[in-house]
Amino acid sequence: MAGVVEKRLAELGITLPEPRPPVANYVPFVRTGQVLVVSGQICADEDGKLIAKGRLGAEVSIEAGQRAARLCGINLLAHVKAALGDLDKVVRVVRLGGFINSAAGFADGAKVMNGASDLMVEVFADRGRHARSTIGVAALPLDAAVEVEGFFEVG
Amino acid sequence: MAGVVEKRLAELGITLPEPRPPVANYVPFVRTGQVLVVSGQICADEDGKLIAKGRLGAEVSIEAGQRAARLCGINLLAHVKAALGDLDKVVRVVRLGGFINSAAGFADGAKVMNGASDLMVEVFADRGRHARSTIGVAALPLDAAVEVEGFFEVG
Amino acid sequence: MAGVVEKRLAELGITLPEPRPPVANYVPFVRTGQVLVVSGQICADEDGKLIAKGRLGAEVSIEAGQRAARLCGINLLAHVKAALGDLDKVVRVVRLGGFINSAAGFADGAKVMNGASDLMVEVFADRGRHARSTIGVAALPLDAAVEVEGFFEVG
Repeated sequence: MAGVVEKRLAELGITLPEPRPPVANYVPFVRTGQVLVVSGQICADEDGKLIAKGRLGAEVSIEAGQRAARLCGINLLAHVKAALGDLDKVVRVVRLGGFINSAAGFADGAKVMNGASDLMVEVFADRGRHARSTIGVAALPLDAAVEVEGFFEVG
Repeated sequence: MAGVVEKRLAELGITLPEPRPPVANYVPFVRTGQVLVVSGQICADEDGKLIAKGRLGAEVSIEAGQRAARLCGINLLAHVKAALGDLDKVVRVVRLGGFINSAAGFADGAKVMNGASDLMVEVFADRGRHARSTIGVAALPLDAAVEVEGFFEVG
Repeated sequence: MAGVVEKRLAELGITLPEPRPPVANYVPFVRTGQVLVVSGQICADEDGKLIAKGRLGAEVSIEAGQRAARLCGINLLAHVKAALGDLDKVVRVVRLGGFINSAAGFADGAKVMNGASDLMVEVFADRGRHARSTIGVAALPLDAAVEVEGFFEVG
């Protein structure tokens, strides 16, 4: 039987992808105590193709960046599900770290990062309301437009 | 009755501002276990006006950056107080993350970040001595010169 | 008697340096609960000399960046040993944060960061397999090519 969060994902029309293996010598998540730490996820789709490459404030629009951030969030959830088996075990989304590939001076990183934050609140409601830090970075792996990492309190 | 930390703030001539709401769809802090995670704070004053915009190593001097970092720290403490009611409940400042809006090659980020670190030690003495990572970023929300996030162990 | 991890370090030909004091007003590590948070370490050798300065994708090659990341990892371990006395008390390397000083668009940050990740797996085997976020930054303290921070679960 699908859990509450899985039903909500279905209502939102979101299908979690098979979690993708890390691109290098690390693991997608580690649990320590009640905290699940999930590695930074880039905006790659199920086939491993980036949906947005390059810099906000240059080649990538805010709207494309928001979609990229949302996909990073979906990729985080795919790993959370793999870690826990059941997304209902998420007690709280504690913190997201948002890394926006940015041209110097790009000032709208917070808007871009809302693509990931809005997703968490849509999926988990109040349990999805998280602390967050958003920064504009000079470069990201594979020239991805956005990377998002997450800390989750789990039951 | 004011607590020990509040008295220390008064001695230092620091008045905590009303904590400012996040600029986007997230919350200023989340507590998980004994750790309070506070979202990245930019160098905005009580009216929401940035006291330093742009890049260190370009438009912003080290001194202005240090004042900006100190204000980020004050904004962190405003949220900690809102979270705990009483700043005496802070057991330890565990970690600060310092994000310095930087021209390529700006090498003095650690000096800038001391604006926030010195504040924590002035306010909390030994309990304020924290781990820290400082990086120079390509961009910050609203083109702020400095952003600082914090993890606090709380009682 | 040397512990298991110390013997492994010796097999790998790694001598941990004297842990270097922070370059500013903070401490190298803080323990909270079962988590040891270690401050961001730059690629400085025992004499405090950076083994790689400047940007990946510009002045610094991927190979030099990997060596720099490995040295950051060794510097992390020096502080972990100072914190715990015995590296066998490391239960798990939970998370590494990798900050790669990068020219805009440098896409191989993950390869560079493997210098640190591979080290942790060589030293701790499965306990060294960690979550990780890697970003390309505009600047680092002292113009270091790489900085790495770490969270460790400790017994």
